[in-house]
Amino acid sequence: MTQPAIILVNPQMAENIGHAARAMLNFGLTDLRLVAPRDGWPNHDSKSTAAGADDLLKNARVFSTTKEAVADCTRVFATTVRDRDMPKPVATPHEAAGQMRDVGDKGGQAAVLFGPERSGLTNDDVVLADTVLSIPVNPDFSSLNLAQAVILVSYEWFAVSDESKPYVEYEGDVASKAELIGLMEHIEQQLEIKGYFRSSGRRETQKRMIRNLLQNSELSSQEIQTLRGVIKSLSGEAQSR
Amino acid sequence: MTQPAIILVNPQMAENIGHAARAMLNFGLTDLRLVAPRDGWPNHDSKSTAAGADDLLKNARVFSTTKEAVADCTRVFATTVRDRDMPKPVATPHEAAGQMRDVGDKGGQAAVLFGPERSGLTNDDVVLADTVLSIPVNPDFSSLNLAQAVILVSYEWFAVSDESKPYVEYEGDVASKAELIGLMEHIEQQLEIKGYFRSSGRRETQKRMIRNLLQNSELSSQEIQTLRGVIKSLSGEAQSR
Repeated sequence: MTQPAIILVNPQMAENIGHAARAMLNFGLTDLRLVAPRDGWPNHDSKSTAAGADDLLKNARVFSTTKEAVADCTRVFATTVRDRDMPKPVATPHEAAGQMRDVGDKGGQAAVLFGPERSGLTNDDVVLADTVLSIPVNPDFSSLNLAQAVILVSYEWFAVSDESKPYVEYEGDVASKAELIGLMEHIEQQLEIKGYFRSSGRRETQKRMIRNLLQNSELSSQEIQTLRGVIKSLSGEAQSR
Repeated sequence: MTQPAIILVNPQMAENIGHAARAMLNFGLTDLRLVAPRDGWPNHDSKSTAAGADDLLKNARVFSTTKEAVADCTRVFATTVRDRDMPKPVATPHEAAGQMRDVGDKGGQAAVLFGPERSGLTNDDVVLADTVLSIPVNPDFSSLNLAQAVILVSYEWFAVSDESKPYVEYEGDVASKAELIGLMEHIEQQLEIKGYFRSSGRRETQKRMIRNLLQNSELSSQEIQTLRGVIKSLSGEAQSR
């Protein structure tokens, strides 16, 4: 399946190109394209922030114009956090990821445009896109940086193929952690007194097993109260007071 | 609805705490908790990377232990990119976000634990969690940094409330951008010759309107060929050759 291309239009800081390359590779993307990077290319400052994604930087293709960068693409997304007064379909990163996968499955080439750090994409670049990829952000603090935007788009693309993880339903009336930890400490204290932890080498492993067992039981406050009574009773604490 | 708390356990670099605070506020989260930050707290180095999310840093609560940080929580997620050999329900960031919302809707307090930059969460911290929040990453390049993990979790939480954006179905057989731009340039060239763009002040706006119209038509290769024939015919290009 063809991967979407990540196209950085007029990126300013080479460090941010490195950050973007790292984020891409974290989520299995390798087709990086640069349109007229401000400080030229290749640029040494991109290396440290790429944190090992060196091949991506080395293989990045550089174009003079956005038009050339998207020439082989059949479906282009323009990333923005602001509203544009341009009539275009709008997709969230999650929806766009699904569409990119459809394009790739059909042998097409998808691409995502990201604008320069300060100003974002120009209207002339957005016009070239089929779809506006709008990242939902807090309207009172929407200063998403370039690398963050690339991370979110790359992550969604990767996650689309990975929806098969088990979902566990939440059930209400669960005790607070303070109550649960109180129970854990109570039982450990009594087991210490009784000499349960005979082998000091295994003490930590045994404790962790018990903690994990209690943790995963999803106990209610009432159940914890009950268990604490049981411990008191078993240990003889109640009588010794 | 109660927001999830973001809990950074033993964070090393204050800069990363700033990055995390910025990412949280981008997605509307404000409950930042720190467990024994390596370089103390408050720390001036967190300020520049917070990029304006100063109130989050100022209001961050500091705890000596993870246990104290989660005391008021009813549902705790432990973030990890590695597999843990601990029997726990596992959720993707997307699934976890849905669960966090359920918890909040029922008046509970959710929290997400993030480990220190190099080592991640200890097993003792993971034991305290109800659910492992596993971020799907490229197994060959899984070096996700702390701020990236916080961004993804915060973003998913925000996005869960924002699923109502329009989804536009993709239809196959769409022309490449090179074909589409070829059509745009062809029509513009002929309109220039014919003196269509009389007012130089409106030229760019008119061109953009036409480009946008053509762009949004989702033309096939065949349709573009047809349209180019139409332009040739209308403009008299065909005869003048």
